[in-house]
Amino acid sequence: MMTSLAPPFRKAYPHFVAIPTRWMDNDTYGHVNNVVYYSYFDTAVNAQLIGAGHLDIRAGAAIGIVVETACRFHRALTFPETIDAGLRVARLGNSSVVYEIALFRAGDDDAAATGRFVHVWVDRATRRPAQLPDAIRSALRPLCVAPESAR
Amino acid sequence: MMTSLAPPFRKAYPHFVAIPTRWMDNDTYGHVNNVVYYSYFDTAVNAQLIGAGHLDIRAGAAIGIVVETACRFHRALTFPETIDAGLRVARLGNSSVVYEIALFRAGDDDAAATGRFVHVWVDRATRRPAQLPDAIRSALRPLCVAPESAR
Amino acid sequence: MMTSLAPPFRKAYPHFVAIPTRWMDNDTYGHVNNVVYYSYFDTAVNAQLIGAGHLDIRAGAAIGIVVETACRFHRALTFPETIDAGLRVARLGNSSVVYEIALFRAGDDDAAATGRFVHVWVDRATRRPAQLPDAIRSALRPLCVAPESAR
Amino acid sequence: MMTSLAPPFRKAYPHFVAIPTRWMDNDTYGHVNNVVYYSYFDTAVNAQLIGAGHLDIRAGAAIGIVVETACRFHRALTFPETIDAGLRVARLGNSSVVYEIALFRAGDDDAAATGRFVHVWVDRATRRPAQLPDAIRSALRPLCVAPESAR
Repeated sequence: MMTSLAPPFRKAYPHFVAIPTRWMDNDTYGHVNNVVYYSYFDTAVNAQLIGAGHLDIRAGAAIGIVVETACRFHRALTFPETIDAGLRVARLGNSSVVYEIALFRAGDDDAAATGRFVHVWVDRATRRPAQLPDAIRSALRPLCVAPESAR
Repeated sequence: MMTSLAPPFRKAYPHFVAIPTRWMDNDTYGHVNNVVYYSYFDTAVNAQLIGAGHLDIRAGAAIGIVVETACRFHRALTFPETIDAGLRVARLGNSSVVYEIALFRAGDDDAAATGRFVHVWVDRATRRPAQLPDAIRSALRPLCVAPESAR
Repeated sequence: MMTSLAPPFRKAYPHFVAIPTRWMDNDTYGHVNNVVYYSYFDTAVNAQLIGAGHLDIRAGAAIGIVVETACRFHRALTFPETIDAGLRVARLGNSSVVYEIALFRAGDDDAAATGRFVHVWVDRATRRPAQLPDAIRSALRPLCVAPESAR
Repeated sequence: MMTSLAPPFRKAYPHFVAIPTRWMDNDTYGHVNNVVYYSYFDTAVNAQLIGAGHLDIRAGAAIGIVVETACRFHRALTFPETIDAGLRVARLGNSSVVYEIALFRAGDDDAAATGRFVHVWVDRATRRPAQLPDAIRSALRPLCVAPESAR
């Protein structure tokens, strides 16, 4: 149903973030609620933007706005597991970035979930499209899995 | 990027659920966090399953497991708005159901977000695919927008 | 263990906010997770501040910072219930406000939970204590259950 | 307002759990929402019960139900910080346990927040009070800061 798919194995990902689950991530059915997977995506992306890209989420002139996300759920995650979130950049555009993300249980090479996460960068005040800041671009380039698109 | 899209206008939806936002739905950027939209999807679907379909989420023999979701974000939502979630069924299969959902701000006919939400029904204990329970099928049939697929 | 207690019956509360539960509010034990009750508190308080007090959460000069909360859990809440949150002001100070809150299941006069929520108002930029804005004070005065403390 | 207070310094705590913050933990005011602190409490307690006490959250005969929590907020926490949650047991009763918890920013000895978390153990099916399971008692005894109450 989605034409592009994040790969479901570890070696496809150049960068990982460890995300411990929380008690309340589990829902009535005893596994991590589907909604929460997107919080892992969100956290993996923004941790990279802040840590490597020095994004100033309080006062930076440009911010990343989410315009599309998607996830396929392959197997259950459960508190108190710690999840390894693999992150890569499928497209590094002029003002948008397409991330591919896979979530792995400890020791598993088959992803429990695979997803997409698309940011468009906008001016914080006007919310109109803005150029991807240079520091962000530099931080994301090592995560690219394909040639950078023309600017 | 997704081949099928939920329509972004109200008249496409036979059923609506009102979902008040909460203070903590807003994130650092002052709008509802992308993750939370999926909680609105989840709530709209399950409220219908419980309310009209008499789903017993504690002890019913079959439960709906989420296998795929997706969302496109068209405009911001913000606490303290109340959201109208439009719900319809794009495919009512033997053991799976594809929902299309759109989120509307009060008074807007253009959706703030549109998404997909795919359930596969499984046996609660074994987590193997199960037939969609009859009461659930009856509750969902009025939400179908296309002929029911052969059983 | 707490010296002051919010009363556990409806008639003690001059103001109510209806808060529908969400699917993911339920945890592994099949009832609303204890953490989420505080989200109901937070939402009831801020809905009043924004609705009646015209608080500008994006740009207002003063903001309310939470310095203390507490909750006693008397009976379970469960999705898909809608909760009635009763709200009153136990102390309306110069820069702080003490709220008492009770959560009721539909039709119940005995509270499912009772709690306290204490705001200190601060300057948005410096985070130093600020006077409670006049519009907020006016919005809260009808919720007071005791004489306003000297200003 | 609370008669007992969790101590706000590290050396008071025999056990720590590292809890990375998440993007959506931050609210409109740019810091971790007050509600989320309780999720850190919940996670620290249950991680210990499952890890050291072998609590079976899916099928164990007895479960811990939260009957009271409280928190004082001393300073802001902000994503992407990792929090150190200090945990100790103030009272290990026949069927109830009183935890004291403090949350520390990395490198800080002054707690950002201090709180209480009270569990009553009940039978999973009947929800009537049950004896604290022996494995749980053994797991919690090293966290006790006062003589165990008579059984």
